[in-house]
Amino acid sequence: MLSKNQLKYIQSLHQKKYRQHHGAFLVEGAKSVQEVLQSNFQTELVVATEAFYKENVHLTDRQRTAVEIVSEAELTRAGTLESNNAALAVVRTKENRPLLAQPDEIALVLDDIRDPGNLGTILRIADWYGVRKILCSETTADVYNPKVISASKGSFTRVNWWYGNVVQVLSQLAGTLPVYGAFLDGADVHTLPFKKSGYLVMGNESNGIGPDLARYITQPVTIPRYGEAESLNVGIATAVLLDNIRRTTA
Amino acid sequence: MLSKNQLKYIQSLHQKKYRQHHGAFLVEGAKSVQEVLQSNFQTELVVATEAFYKENVHLTDRQRTAVEIVSEAELTRAGTLESNNAALAVVRTKENRPLLAQPDEIALVLDDIRDPGNLGTILRIADWYGVRKILCSETTADVYNPKVISASKGSFTRVNWWYGNVVQVLSQLAGTLPVYGAFLDGADVHTLPFKKSGYLVMGNESNGIGPDLARYITQPVTIPRYGEAESLNVGIATAVLLDNIRRTTA
Repeated sequence: MLSKNQLKYIQSLHQKKYRQHHGAFLVEGAKSVQEVLQSNFQTELVVATEAFYKENVHLTDRQRTAVEIVSEAELTRAGTLESNNAALAVVRTKENRPLLAQPDEIALVLDDIRDPGNLGTILRIADWYGVRKILCSETTADVYNPKVISASKGSFTRVNWWYGNVVQVLSQLAGTLPVYGAFLDGADVHTLPFKKSGYLVMGNESNGIGPDLARYITQPVTIPRYGEAESLNVGIATAVLLDNIRRTTA
Repeated sequence: MLSKNQLKYIQSLHQKKYRQHHGAFLVEGAKSVQEVLQSNFQTELVVATEAFYKENVHLTDRQRTAVEIVSEAELTRAGTLESNNAALAVVRTKENRPLLAQPDEIALVLDDIRDPGNLGTILRIADWYGVRKILCSETTADVYNPKVISASKGSFTRVNWWYGNVVQVLSQLAGTLPVYGAFLDGADVHTLPFKKSGYLVMGNESNGIGPDLARYITQPVTIPRYGEAESLNVGIATAVLLDNIRRTTA
């Protein structure tokens, strides 16, 4: 059972300001909790139903993680999911370390991606396509938002991110690596020969890539359209672009 | 202002059984209502704020559509969106007519896609890639669900669908057209030469393509993975597959 203070602490992590204050975030649901316990994230506490605990005691024991056994109702009250019959974990956030694309590496740059569901989906897509580094503008949704963690389906444990001044980072590349960016009038990604190294910039859901960043795009790219939809969702576009990059450079 | 009966009728259309009973569904938000008024769907009634009505009176006049002017609060109460400051439309559903892929045409087959958001996204992707026909298993989410209509971002006006026994349809093709289906161990879509005509089958979010349908897949296909994510969301996978089909056959 959770103490009043534990419950209050866990519920405070629903909000960004308390996640930042405490340096901790929530991971919810059976699969995500199992994944985080097997990752290099440091777990403070697992709150679990008895059934989940019994099945996963080898994972919590290995890390000597503190565990509280609770009812489904208590678990659901503590977390953000509509229902949770398994577990949640309180996990330490990581240090915000700068990331740069290395030779033979494609890194993602997110310019003001606002929707947590989109950000989580992008983490999952990055993980599928072997992209390990995501540079996020400070206005991008908080990666530790429970909706992002949940939508990433465990991929948050395998992808690294940095939040900061992405315009500055790209301005300092000075043409050393290509910077691809999705625009309406760029090169056709079905015929463009992509390089093995560089950055792929994805812009805001409504406004695309901002003008400050657009200056540093060395290669605008476009997904050809065969019908009439006005646009593709940013997660969908990220997947199609990475698929095109991988197929021409792998 | 809406009468009690009008409000009750509109709210009943939140539910599938009443949509089926009345042969009508809801289209919500400025952009979607504008699109449906310019499509070949038959609109019974537009419920709009004064501001929306003034800006779009040319659209409602052209179709001689009945209009009710309401407050934002009244509009939001009638519909399903968290907030709506523009309009909703009550639109007649279409007859459920069988669809078959014609020469040089790719049609989509959806086997038990349960999530309305996924279905709406798939409509939008189909529209982007010029796919005009979607055959849905009877267990697939209702395309007239307001969440589907909303997630399709207007693409529901340009894509046709049929709900029925998709197993039977595919069983009767007898090898005349290829039937592509996404599996974990299919042909690599980066190297497979796709045909210009055929069916692309997408399966349930958790279980993939069911065994009854799997028998009729003539070409299993797989999106190559470069990282460690277990899977891609079905909407993402649909986009990547259609992108690969279009680039090799266009």
